[in-house]
Amino acid sequence: MSVYIRGYGITKFRKSKDSIYSLALEAATALIRRFEIERKDIDGIIIASSSPEPYLANVISDMLGIRPKIACKVEQMCSSGSRAITTAYSYIRAELAKNILVIGVDKHDSISNILEWDPGRGNFKHPTHWAALYTQLHMRLFGTTEEDLALVTVKNRKNGIKNGYSYFNNELTLEEVMNSKQIVGPLRLYHCSYICDGAAALLLTDKPDDKPVRIVGIGEKSIGASISSITDYTCLESTVIASKEAYKMANISVKDIDLFEIHDAFSICEIMAYESLNLVEKGKGRQLLRDLIDDKASIKINSSGGLLGNGHPLATTGVAQAVELTMQLKEEAGERQVKGCRIAALHNMAAAATTSNVLIFKREYG
Amino acid sequence: MSVYIRGYGITKFRKSKDSIYSLALEAATALIRRFEIERKDIDGIIIASSSPEPYLANVISDMLGIRPKIACKVEQMCSSGSRAITTAYSYIRAELAKNILVIGVDKHDSISNILEWDPGRGNFKHPTHWAALYTQLHMRLFGTTEEDLALVTVKNRKNGIKNGYSYFNNELTLEEVMNSKQIVGPLRLYHCSYICDGAAALLLTDKPDDKPVRIVGIGEKSIGASISSITDYTCLESTVIASKEAYKMANISVKDIDLFEIHDAFSICEIMAYESLNLVEKGKGRQLLRDLIDDKASIKINSSGGLLGNGHPLATTGVAQAVELTMQLKEEAGERQVKGCRIAALHNMAAAATTSNVLIFKREYG
Repeated sequence: MSVYIRGYGITKFRKSKDSIYSLALEAATALIRRFEIERKDIDGIIIASSSPEPYLANVISDMLGIRPKIACKVEQMCSSGSRAITTAYSYIRAELAKNILVIGVDKHDSISNILEWDPGRGNFKHPTHWAALYTQLHMRLFGTTEEDLALVTVKNRKNGIKNGYSYFNNELTLEEVMNSKQIVGPLRLYHCSYICDGAAALLLTDKPDDKPVRIVGIGEKSIGASISSITDYTCLESTVIASKEAYKMANISVKDIDLFEIHDAFSICEIMAYESLNLVEKGKGRQLLRDLIDDKASIKINSSGGLLGNGHPLATTGVAQAVELTMQLKEEAGERQVKGCRIAALHNMAAAATTSNVLIFKREYG
Repeated sequence: MSVYIRGYGITKFRKSKDSIYSLALEAATALIRRFEIERKDIDGIIIASSSPEPYLANVISDMLGIRPKIACKVEQMCSSGSRAITTAYSYIRAELAKNILVIGVDKHDSISNILEWDPGRGNFKHPTHWAALYTQLHMRLFGTTEEDLALVTVKNRKNGIKNGYSYFNNELTLEEVMNSKQIVGPLRLYHCSYICDGAAALLLTDKPDDKPVRIVGIGEKSIGASISSITDYTCLESTVIASKEAYKMANISVKDIDLFEIHDAFSICEIMAYESLNLVEKGKGRQLLRDLIDDKASIKINSSGGLLGNGHPLATTGVAQAVELTMQLKEEAGERQVKGCRIAALHNMAAAATTSNVLIFKREYG
């Protein structure tokens, strides 16, 4: 039994008073209209969200005029989006559903956006603290520079403003990033992704369409939930494990991947992810970054703009990454189209990389 | 690929200041100890909860010393528990995990316990309003009496106080129920289940143990989320659809079922469920009730005591129902053991029966 991505929809990322419901509906109806989906064919609806609204999947289903077999909200903080995709994949593989609408939706001011629990963090609960820790260590051990960190943001913002849904409208110069406000240690404002509102939708199905995109690899790992569950701060531990598993399931080498959407919650995350995803050896992340900027790399990273280039509506992010992979693999990405993109992957993580989910999609036409 | 239930654990239902975390840990460690489960073998943890705490599955996993592949919270109001079981079932069927710990856990004072959204309900948002509507209609059309309603509670409370985890300690007389405080229309206090704290845990696995209990049927349906999505108030519409599907998947007739755990959120729900699950024809629910009380029925209903006999910690309920099925099918139910129990089913629903999930378990030994 194979699982394919049939359609996608996404909203403009924003900071608004729009309700969680209207955001979800906007992404879902964009998908339903563009791909001419019959509502009666949708037998599952899985919502990824940090919203505490009860019965959220059913309410959205009701508003959409869908009467599904399966309706469910899933939550795993910033990796909720990819979690919803693997949940939908599993329901289809288990033959409990045929066509599942996955919607990632979140608000910038959700009460569940911040992880209050973690005795190991003491009072340093804001994500900038773990990001500063990872950043300082990487700079000290591997010579990563403030310029490297800034270049990640410059690259991703440049991609983001092309896609039509980014929160942002303008490019940033290297100087603007390097001179932006200092937050914690070496961490500056523009090294941090911006929490905003947004929704993204995907339709997973058991049948291929005329431009089939198939889910071929899934790797997932949670090493815990707290800073103290990490044993090696020189890499993203859960990413190392999840990516190995995903490559194995897809029966590919990392070199086969044409595009990787990476969870760049902070600039350092992208550089560390290059290494933890085994795109390069540990400590060589900054070299790949320079190659990417000079267009000398054999892979594209964050063609969508990633989190730094688009904003980060928590549970939406993993679904938005999958929307980008699907657009690229269906050759519908317009001016940011990655030429010859046949295998594309996403890396979605949560809470200081204590969780990582890696998904691999493959183009099966042409 | 078959999915089995390997172990179970459950807490005393209560009203307490215990945290959502400590409740979950209590049920999970009861399971892990009793069934001698190695933590390293658990590769998935799925939490059913209305709690808005973010990253809940990971935090509980961290506290338990488990480093799973899959960690996820699922929510579908009062049917979250069975939703978590079918999600775990799907992950195993999809070959993404082998041993998944499912925990249902909720607090009586969770902010997400009440569905605020439903324009069709106007100001009548409390569940007692839809229950009163169903009750009045059933009394008028089918001659169901106040005594029938009270007998459901008397029967279930009597079962509940035997199981060791019920919120309640004493039986209720027919008079006590019939004279209890009037809430809305014919609905009285003791016709309503009691929202409390509690947790229940199950271990789903891909391998049979020495007393294998297999999940053989799953039927699920959501007809919407609002009162206005219901077209026929004389039955539980979603239950009719979900149960047919479950019987079909299990390849059984309803007459093959030895025990049914039914979602008796209110007395009327149990009587209506008899009919909607096709145990009897529409309007004959009260006859089956009398047969059950006179021990003349060929099926047992709510041997655990159900929601009326135990209390109703929202997302916990579906998992607690499955714990009862497993205990009965493994012949570990003590003085409430249903003799010769080989096929057992559960009916878990949400929000005026706009969702129903029906699961069927089968004993595959002896």
